[in-house]
Amino acid sequence: MGAAIYHKTEYRERRDHYAVFWANREPDAFDTQREAFLGVYGSPARPEAVFGDGCTDSVAHGWQPIAAQEFDLELKSGESESILFGLGYIENPQDEKWAAPGVVNKTRAEAMIARYADDTSFDRAMETLRAHWSGLLGKYQVATGDERLDRMVNIWNQYQCMVTFNMSRSASYYESGMGRGMGFRDSCQDLLGFVHMIPERARERILDIAATQFPDGSAYHQYQPLTKKGNLDVGSGFNDDPLWLIAGTDAYLRETGDFGILDEQVDFDNDHALARPLLEHLRRSFTYTRTHLGPHGLPLIGRADWNDCLNLNCFSEHPGESFQITGPSEGPVAESVFIGGMFVKYGRDWVNILRHVGLDSEADEALEAIGAVEKAVLDAGWDGEWFRRAYDAFGHVVGGKECEEGQIFIEPQGMCVMAGIGVQSGEAARALESVEQRLDTKYGIVLLNPAYTRYHLELGEISSYPPGYKENAGIFCHNNPWIVCAETELGHGDRAFQVYRRTAPAFIEDISDIHRTEPYVYSQMIAGKDAPSFGEAKNSWLTGTAAWTFLSISQAILGVKPTLDGLRIDPCVPSGCKGFTLTRQYRGAVYEITVNNPEGAQHGVKELRVDGELFQGDLIPVSAPGATVRVEVLLG
Amino acid sequence: MGAAIYHKTEYRERRDHYAVFWANREPDAFDTQREAFLGVYGSPARPEAVFGDGCTDSVAHGWQPIAAQEFDLELKSGESESILFGLGYIENPQDEKWAAPGVVNKTRAEAMIARYADDTSFDRAMETLRAHWSGLLGKYQVATGDERLDRMVNIWNQYQCMVTFNMSRSASYYESGMGRGMGFRDSCQDLLGFVHMIPERARERILDIAATQFPDGSAYHQYQPLTKKGNLDVGSGFNDDPLWLIAGTDAYLRETGDFGILDEQVDFDNDHALARPLLEHLRRSFTYTRTHLGPHGLPLIGRADWNDCLNLNCFSEHPGESFQITGPSEGPVAESVFIGGMFVKYGRDWVNILRHVGLDSEADEALEAIGAVEKAVLDAGWDGEWFRRAYDAFGHVVGGKECEEGQIFIEPQGMCVMAGIGVQSGEAARALESVEQRLDTKYGIVLLNPAYTRYHLELGEISSYPPGYKENAGIFCHNNPWIVCAETELGHGDRAFQVYRRTAPAFIEDISDIHRTEPYVYSQMIAGKDAPSFGEAKNSWLTGTAAWTFLSISQAILGVKPTLDGLRIDPCVPSGCKGFTLTRQYRGAVYEITVNNPEGAQHGVKELRVDGELFQGDLIPVSAPGATVRVEVLLG
Repeated sequence: MGAAIYHKTEYRERRDHYAVFWANREPDAFDTQREAFLGVYGSPARPEAVFGDGCTDSVAHGWQPIAAQEFDLELKSGESESILFGLGYIENPQDEKWAAPGVVNKTRAEAMIARYADDTSFDRAMETLRAHWSGLLGKYQVATGDERLDRMVNIWNQYQCMVTFNMSRSASYYESGMGRGMGFRDSCQDLLGFVHMIPERARERILDIAATQFPDGSAYHQYQPLTKKGNLDVGSGFNDDPLWLIAGTDAYLRETGDFGILDEQVDFDNDHALARPLLEHLRRSFTYTRTHLGPHGLPLIGRADWNDCLNLNCFSEHPGESFQITGPSEGPVAESVFIGGMFVKYGRDWVNILRHVGLDSEADEALEAIGAVEKAVLDAGWDGEWFRRAYDAFGHVVGGKECEEGQIFIEPQGMCVMAGIGVQSGEAARALESVEQRLDTKYGIVLLNPAYTRYHLELGEISSYPPGYKENAGIFCHNNPWIVCAETELGHGDRAFQVYRRTAPAFIEDISDIHRTEPYVYSQMIAGKDAPSFGEAKNSWLTGTAAWTFLSISQAILGVKPTLDGLRIDPCVPSGCKGFTLTRQYRGAVYEITVNNPEGAQHGVKELRVDGELFQGDLIPVSAPGATVRVEVLLG
Repeated sequence: MGAAIYHKTEYRERRDHYAVFWANREPDAFDTQREAFLGVYGSPARPEAVFGDGCTDSVAHGWQPIAAQEFDLELKSGESESILFGLGYIENPQDEKWAAPGVVNKTRAEAMIARYADDTSFDRAMETLRAHWSGLLGKYQVATGDERLDRMVNIWNQYQCMVTFNMSRSASYYESGMGRGMGFRDSCQDLLGFVHMIPERARERILDIAATQFPDGSAYHQYQPLTKKGNLDVGSGFNDDPLWLIAGTDAYLRETGDFGILDEQVDFDNDHALARPLLEHLRRSFTYTRTHLGPHGLPLIGRADWNDCLNLNCFSEHPGESFQITGPSEGPVAESVFIGGMFVKYGRDWVNILRHVGLDSEADEALEAIGAVEKAVLDAGWDGEWFRRAYDAFGHVVGGKECEEGQIFIEPQGMCVMAGIGVQSGEAARALESVEQRLDTKYGIVLLNPAYTRYHLELGEISSYPPGYKENAGIFCHNNPWIVCAETELGHGDRAFQVYRRTAPAFIEDISDIHRTEPYVYSQMIAGKDAPSFGEAKNSWLTGTAAWTFLSISQAILGVKPTLDGLRIDPCVPSGCKGFTLTRQYRGAVYEITVNNPEGAQHGVKELRVDGELFQGDLIPVSAPGATVRVEVLLG
């Protein structure tokens, strides 16, 4: 029954694998030579076999082998037929490679084909696959009444989080080559959106990443997923990197409560002789930033921080030079307000971890260092209406009113407010107003404004892009959710959701002709208002946007926040939201959460009931594995 | 007048170049965005702008910029119009980059466009280009009465020789990547077909190649054309490599008489501290082979000889392993009869050079060593009806009657006969008969027979190919002209030309549907009789076939042979050839040669006249530069 096309190029004594393409019905014709299928001057846009007289039973010998099967069907109106196609890959053991001299052993392929021989067995396999994905995505499921939001949260955003966890930024179909490997910073952030799905794999990843860290706490900027070793080409000196390890590990601890990971012996620089507990790695991350402060008491930026294109210590004048690693690249003057915000935010997470493992005096000392940087951010980092971005190598402000171009950047506004800086004293609210006034567009928030119109030697790559693209005032999707999270810190549910939905794929399906990338997946960038193609997205799939948007919707807006000690319930929703129900699997228990918002509040838990009982506070302690916990929330 | 499309991606303060596409008439429409031109689901096979409603004046911002101009013309029957198109590249000096802030300085482009603004200036430029090529190709021009032969000799074969000289085997459009660089062996052979065109560039190339040689006379197998340094990835140990340096240098000396090149100080291994005269490099080439002989007194093969796929010291069992550099790779047992032939042939050239510079006693010693290897070839290298190919690492014969597969190889038959081995004693003629009986096909001579049907661990890559492809019994075009040259050594003009024309592109135009590569250029390989696609060629352009076929037709068949002391005239033609005329520029003089063959001889100069005077012998001494020398040859 059926027919299979085998691709066995170079399957000989040395090579042991082949591919197979099959159908569960005998074809009327086939092709295996690409040129025969496409036509001599044909192309996939117009294959001769499809537009012409059909397949010609071509047999490939070299060139480009393909596999095509032709079925001549006549269907009456309403009639349907089922043909199953399969594409498989087989490796044979050395002593089972041949059925006869020169004849490939197809036993394994035939067994595989038999497994999917008819609709029943196919449906059964599909059901297994569906159950697998339901299990993975079922850890967080919401019903809000808005089909688009549910679809993003329950399926596509989580799925994209898994893809970015697996691929980081390597193997993109927009970029070629294996050069990049996995980013230290990227992979740590990807954890934030993935850790709830398969915590075991997140654990393994954290240990892999930490093992590439240098003994002084700094990090290779990239590492190779196959060797799990740091990538020498780009080296280190991206001074935000170390703190992301705290962020990723803290997310894992909050999800799992697995504090045992902190005791794991982990290499430094992949040298087993240098192995120390993971806790020591986090300590060195924190210490690296604490001990690398600049003239204003802000963290030194090094080669770059999160924004790889803001190169304050690299002065490249010639084409072909790397913007990150040419010339001095690092220096003792240029500082990053953004890393200042990170240090406050993830430093506090570090303090919480320290307290949890009983290192209170170290926690107190850390808090002191954090306080000093927080003060520096509010002093040297505050421009009057927003947070500055940095100081360059000459001590000049980057991202301030005095700047000719690039007066305000998104990153420090998001990160500093997320860190809680200026929330009490008013700078936070003022900064977010400035974002809305100066960076907002109908398609998302641009990275900076005004765009750079010429190359600034002292700023580097960011000013090499045309206005409105990439980091030069593009809508860099990754940091839009930072503003979402920041707005929820201030209880601004309407604004938070407004920002969220402007870049959420399901909400912008009706502008697909402008947006152009897949309407179910986030892209790295959307062209900003200064670009001729304003609203056009690029580089879908592999972007930290996936993790951060999932964080922003699942934790900041819908408000289910894992903490070291349990789930905190603290939604911050648009006033039009009447409520929602949500299922969250957490440390083995299932939380069935119902949120009611009869008065149209944006924020504030008025009443919380756990299994019907009134509950004080908003932090629900960890329940026993297997338990189902019923949570009712009244906003107001 | 006209319109130009500028491609200025990333032309900013750092980058200084742009491209321009122009026409000398105003277009009716244009496109610069690829997708707009091709259509969303379109392709170059069916561009929407061509098959649909024309160009849409699309302006590219990112993605894939293209340049297309549309002209709506109506031509009456017999009417014609001229539109000139140009594609150019401009680099601006740093201080002349901008016409105004943000406006690219187009002065240089506009000057270029003005240079080709109308048919007259275009025709003038075209004429200059034609004169340039006539000058290059005019060094050797023949009129045989056969338009196909004249076209091959006068234009395409020489042109391909220039392409292979420039590109070696890198930058092929069949292979991707820069990994290969220039081959030591390849580039030396490419010289053989190029040296008459621009001897100055050949001189430079010889010195570049020699500078990569190791102090012991061995060679990096490849080097990078930009750095001119040896390529470490593949390393050395291909034991034919050193002798090709003698071949290339000797060809240069015979063409130019520039013995001064032998005094040039040339680095070893690109280390200037190790520089010695080029003569010393040739000496070490010769000495390397002389001192690396195996158990039968034949040269050790090392990693491989000319046939990179015959790997007698590498025992690769696993996919992904290099066949050349895995495991031992080199060894003290495996010997090459082919290198034996090379040593005799190019060793004698070395002897001639030595005598020419007055080193007679060294020449005598060299001859003794050559005699010993010649004897070894006739003893251990002779199989009874043909020359063996090699001895493997276990001392077993490769390419002999006792072999299960691969009983006879083409390479030693060609090289040993070219070297003159067995010409007097009869082995040469017997070997060439065996070639005709066992290796000949209607599309050329296969590399070996019978083809390997399974992988032979002790032979390596050659047996990993399907029968009839590549080195496994494909028609490897490179060594067909060796048989042509060898046949002329025996005076077999009919057979030599038969072999020549079977692979000569102009002679096989009528089987283009089988041959499939360009009908004016040699390919690396034609599928052999064991292949399902017998007669189908692959990898056109970059192949040593170009140089060797030009050598075989220009020197061996048409018989104009540069020597150290002048031009030798010794045609070996098919008996149907009634004669031909030939112009040869040689050391600044022009030789107008007329060959008459009234009796249909295949070989043998009966009478030679120089400038009307009867001349003894066949070696015409060097004439004064600028002279025109009239040569009349009577065969018989």
